Amino acid sequence: MSKLLIAGTVAYDSLRTPGGERAKILGGSAMHAGVAASLLVQSRLLSVVGGDFAPEHLDFLSGRGIDLSGVKIIPEGKTFAWSGFYEKDLEQAHSLRTDLNVLNVFDARLPENYLNSEYVFLGNIDPELQLKILAQLPERKFAALDTMNFWIDGRKTVLLKAIAEADLLFINDAELRQLTGEPNLPRAARSLLGGRLKYVALKKGENGALLIGAESIAVAPAFPLADVLDPTGAGDSFAGGFMSWVSLRGTEADQLRAALVYGTLAASFNVQGFGCERLAQVSPADIKTRYNEYKMLTSAPELNYFLQGVRQC
Amino acid sequence: MSKLLIAGTVAYDSLRTPGGERAKILGGSAMHAGVAASLLVQSRLLSVVGGDFAPEHLDFLSGRGIDLSGVKIIPEGKTFAWSGFYEKDLEQAHSLRTDLNVLNVFDARLPENYLNSEYVFLGNIDPELQLKILAQLPERKFAALDTMNFWIDGRKTVLLKAIAEADLLFINDAELRQLTGEPNLPRAARSLLGGRLKYVALKKGENGALLIGAESIAVAPAFPLADVLDPTGAGDSFAGGFMSWVSLRGTEADQLRAALVYGTLAASFNVQGFGCERLAQVSPADIKTRYNEYKMLTSAPELNYFLQGVRQC
Repeated sequence: MSKLLIAGTVAYDSLRTPGGERAKILGGSAMHAGVAASLLVQSRLLSVVGGDFAPEHLDFLSGRGIDLSGVKIIPEGKTFAWSGFYEKDLEQAHSLRTDLNVLNVFDARLPENYLNSEYVFLGNIDPELQLKILAQLPERKFAALDTMNFWIDGRKTVLLKAIAEADLLFINDAELRQLTGEPNLPRAARSLLGGRLKYVALKKGENGALLIGAESIAVAPAFPLADVLDPTGAGDSFAGGFMSWVSLRGTEADQLRAALVYGTLAASFNVQGFGCERLAQVSPADIKTRYNEYKMLTSAPELNYFLQGVRQC
Repeated sequence: MSKLLIAGTVAYDSLRTPGGERAKILGGSAMHAGVAASLLVQSRLLSVVGGDFAPEHLDFLSGRGIDLSGVKIIPEGKTFAWSGFYEKDLEQAHSLRTDLNVLNVFDARLPENYLNSEYVFLGNIDPELQLKILAQLPERKFAALDTMNFWIDGRKTVLLKAIAEADLLFINDAELRQLTGEPNLPRAARSLLGGRLKYVALKKGENGALLIGAESIAVAPAFPLADVLDPTGAGDSFAGGFMSWVSLRGTEADQLRAALVYGTLAASFNVQGFGCERLAQVSPADIKTRYNEYKMLTSAPELNYFLQGVRQC
């Protein structure tokens, strides 16, 4: 059985996109990553919610094989809540309100039964907490860390320490440039490698993803979609998909490349519905169908045969 | 023999990038496209230069098998000249000076021996001239048109007319959104199809390219490079590579996909040197080597085998 730990937020999101709106739906980095991972493996969630968290939402998550023994319920508190909207271009989330609520007292302490976790996804939370979680995991084999500009702005030193303790960093292109001051993405990514860090998984949204190692690059374009409904959680479902694959198949180079593509497909479903509405409906047959289409759209045709005729100028 | 016509500018560029600077080097859309095309085929250039245009530059171009009988030399005029610079991020060219010079009297009249051209690349010039060129080509099989925000701002009506007369439109993502008002790229591209137009080739720079048809999409990520020196002409060398492939292999769907990748590889060499310095040094062996590496970096691994184990939640 996979021993994948997913730590991060579980939230209530209220949002509006050009395609519609939803109030108080399930959101948060750990939720999106956990639901994406649940297509392949059972995982363990580390998070915190308030007394307002609906029992049917707990049922939904545990019904997907997600272990919730590390999701602390604080009866007198309220669940982390975010509200916002997207413009027509869906490029950037505009926050209307962010209520940290119970996140303010999240202590990131692992229950006994999580301590043997081998694979870890640290969703976007305070890097101090990310470090605290890693310190509780003596048997970890591969830890991946996600972050955002907020922590780069305000907590760069501790963030760099946490990054050096992880095996892989999930980050988007703007954040990578901000963190390193280097505009060229392969160079920027490689400037971070060292300590324990061996890979940067670069999230580029509709432009896909790159996996950059010291001497390797793998490229996965995004699945082109004409019906993106809600980009919230795309990066988290990508990471959750990626890490579920790795927890099942290991970290050899070929498997990391496969994980990159698998995560890309998970994210493509995520954005086709609000919250995790679409992703939660996905069947293995859907994934296979999308993978086959993806392979058709993205595979480079055999140029070598045609290139026989190239002339020397 | 291929009958590829390349129309556009031949320029003297003076530019500075973080990697160095050059004064009065060969530039212009037709030059970049022509040099890229010359790796595969002989083409015909339609352009205009001034009396200051150096004989060795004419020799350089004709030495690459490019027919210059349609390059009008106006002895009393000066060659189109551009100077500018790029910031560290290489994202945007900042113009310091643009001297149209002989471009002001470019009449886009084709010499007799060009009139049987079958494949046409219309570089970024006034759409009125692009229309005029197309009107002179009764035997054309496939014409591709490039443009830029300047013409979208100022000449939208005639530009849309020219686009509807072409078979394929080269355009970048910002321009496509500007032209159509639709942020979703596949939807935006498809909103333009009609008249004669069957494809939009979307140029996304370091994020690669998409080829969008009414019911098809092909995706080509860019070749990831840690040593981009000068992005000038990347789009033109992409288009020139693409059209050279098409002029040699035709316009079946498979060949258009191959052209997309081939153009991507041509552009990857173009940006590794100033102007066409690097591209002009490329050998067939270099292309094959880069293609093999590209295929390795970008090919989606076989997930289907692994997906056998996917569980149904």
